[in-house]
Amino acid sequence: MPLTERDDGWRRLIDAAELTRFVTEALRAAGARQSDAEVTAEVLVAADLGGVESHGVARLRRYVEGLRNGDINPHAVPETVSERGSVCVLDAHNGLGQPALREAVDIAVSRAQQFGTSTVMVRRSNHMGIAGWFAERAARAGMLALVSTNAVPQVAPMGTNEPMFGTNPLCYAVPTTTSTLCFDGATSTVSRGKLEQLDRLGEPMLKGWALGPDGQNTTDIPETVQGLIHRKGYALLPLGGGDKNYGGHKGSAMSLLVELLCGPLAGAQWSRHTYQNGEGGLGHFVFCLNLGALGDADTIRARVDELAQEVRAGAPTDNHAPVRIPGERRHRVTDMRREGGIPVLQSVVTDLDEIAAFVGISRVSALTYDA
Amino acid sequence: MPLTERDDGWRRLIDAAELTRFVTEALRAAGARQSDAEVTAEVLVAADLGGVESHGVARLRRYVEGLRNGDINPHAVPETVSERGSVCVLDAHNGLGQPALREAVDIAVSRAQQFGTSTVMVRRSNHMGIAGWFAERAARAGMLALVSTNAVPQVAPMGTNEPMFGTNPLCYAVPTTTSTLCFDGATSTVSRGKLEQLDRLGEPMLKGWALGPDGQNTTDIPETVQGLIHRKGYALLPLGGGDKNYGGHKGSAMSLLVELLCGPLAGAQWSRHTYQNGEGGLGHFVFCLNLGALGDADTIRARVDELAQEVRAGAPTDNHAPVRIPGERRHRVTDMRREGGIPVLQSVVTDLDEIAAFVGISRVSALTYDA
Repeated sequence: MPLTERDDGWRRLIDAAELTRFVTEALRAAGARQSDAEVTAEVLVAADLGGVESHGVARLRRYVEGLRNGDINPHAVPETVSERGSVCVLDAHNGLGQPALREAVDIAVSRAQQFGTSTVMVRRSNHMGIAGWFAERAARAGMLALVSTNAVPQVAPMGTNEPMFGTNPLCYAVPTTTSTLCFDGATSTVSRGKLEQLDRLGEPMLKGWALGPDGQNTTDIPETVQGLIHRKGYALLPLGGGDKNYGGHKGSAMSLLVELLCGPLAGAQWSRHTYQNGEGGLGHFVFCLNLGALGDADTIRARVDELAQEVRAGAPTDNHAPVRIPGERRHRVTDMRREGGIPVLQSVVTDLDEIAAFVGISRVSALTYDA
Repeated sequence: MPLTERDDGWRRLIDAAELTRFVTEALRAAGARQSDAEVTAEVLVAADLGGVESHGVARLRRYVEGLRNGDINPHAVPETVSERGSVCVLDAHNGLGQPALREAVDIAVSRAQQFGTSTVMVRRSNHMGIAGWFAERAARAGMLALVSTNAVPQVAPMGTNEPMFGTNPLCYAVPTTTSTLCFDGATSTVSRGKLEQLDRLGEPMLKGWALGPDGQNTTDIPETVQGLIHRKGYALLPLGGGDKNYGGHKGSAMSLLVELLCGPLAGAQWSRHTYQNGEGGLGHFVFCLNLGALGDADTIRARVDELAQEVRAGAPTDNHAPVRIPGERRHRVTDMRREGGIPVLQSVVTDLDEIAAFVGISRVSALTYDA
């Protein structure tokens, strides 16, 4: 039994500006301030533009419902609760994650311009979309940036099958001469979103990705996804899997690093204690390092290009698949989709139509069907 | 054909203070300054104390030879070549890695005490032993610290079989109420040192760890180790292996992050261009975040303990193996060995005896045999 009706590839093409318009209006109608709605819409649509549909407008319903039912505070204004030189801690007051994290990034950039390097933490926050959007914002300002967040507990550290950590992305971006180099990926082997996507496509789940309540590998997607959502003892495995021989302890340790930063150090909940009494309680982390504080920024950018070029030129193990630099594919897809429209699954379009009816705004208009 | 004679478990117990005395004298006799010899000895012996023999006194010969033949500059004094607020860049002038990186850590701690956070880079450096020693030094001063280095190229990013990256450790430490929590591991699935160790023990190498010149998985340890040393087209695989389905692109991206920081950003060589014309040319990276700049440091340490305790209490997938917190095992082994002596492989003791003869100092005295 699939989780949702198989989409069989049917998608609707939607213009990026129209999709952004729709998401902004929906959030606005659900109670968010105009500026908060705008940045949240921009980050969600950036995910769909870049081909990261799991973090895009398919999540809008949860935002709208959260704002409407009070789980997310539509009136929250992020507040600086502690600052010292190049370090700052923000309280998001349980508002939308995107405006809080954007504020954190902008503070981090400005502090790193002043001091060379900076760290900004956010506590009492919510889901904030793709970390890459935020890291690239800082990179465009001349920073090497690290951005992370914790999340609902789904990942079991090596040695247990109890979910302790979020999928805790490790995300970084650095400027090149013409663009940015940006990696954004969960510290688990796969994310739940990936399982849902495979289910829609009718493709199998592999061993080494998740454990069932018996502590054994599971490859049943609907059971695993439902088990993760309803916290029934299912867990995703960290990068490296559940086996020390393949580095499961290393993936666990990276996920733990994110958890330490975004939980105890940010003064936020750690993943296991998030989403209690309706409040997310998430923490985010931003680190900026100003290239200009290390030497001549243009020279450093050129050397980043050089390193990337050498990696790209590595002899491919598969002649049909050249070596990839993090972020390149996403940038290419973004350019294409900004030009030609974003293919959105029919099931997601239906969802958006229901949201439109729910909050009383006009439906998103699709360009055409895309097979 | 094994790489070295199998040791069959024969080890000599050596007192930690005696081993430190010996290493210090050997480095001193090879030309190093007393203070440089002392810190280098301390870091090397710390690896043996903690059970990380691959990074311990087994490497002493290379240091002594390097100092004697001029590949490592015994007279180098690390010099600050750029500083701006919380950022500092040191030129190690091709001296020993340990004194340069210790200096970097001490500057980073002092800058983070002043500014809250700091980044210090080192360029033109050499091998610096275990990153954990340096991260824990900063953690004992109340910092969350990240420490990394690049190294001789051995790791192929996903999609190629050309070694581009070093084993590029990702190392962090954070203070707890009583000690430190510290992870220190290569961003490759396994290190060459691990292969050499398995060979000595007569244990097999697994698929997914390394590629041969044909781009296919290799499981022949001596061939792989020799192929890596002599750069004959062999490569270790990143964490996650060579398969996107298991996150090979994520491990690659983490290794690339270290390479970016320690290469182009530090103004050092990146791994592929290290060790040319006799000079290492390595780069190191130190990041410190002062817990006291985030809030009450004692409260944060107590919450770090709490998180670690929850992870430790996770239901074990194997009843004989409780869930581990990074660094715990190493600390336990260190305490035992500081008390009862360090078991050193007979082949390594023989090596140390040869070094003693070479530089003209008295041999290390072993306590006893340890089966």
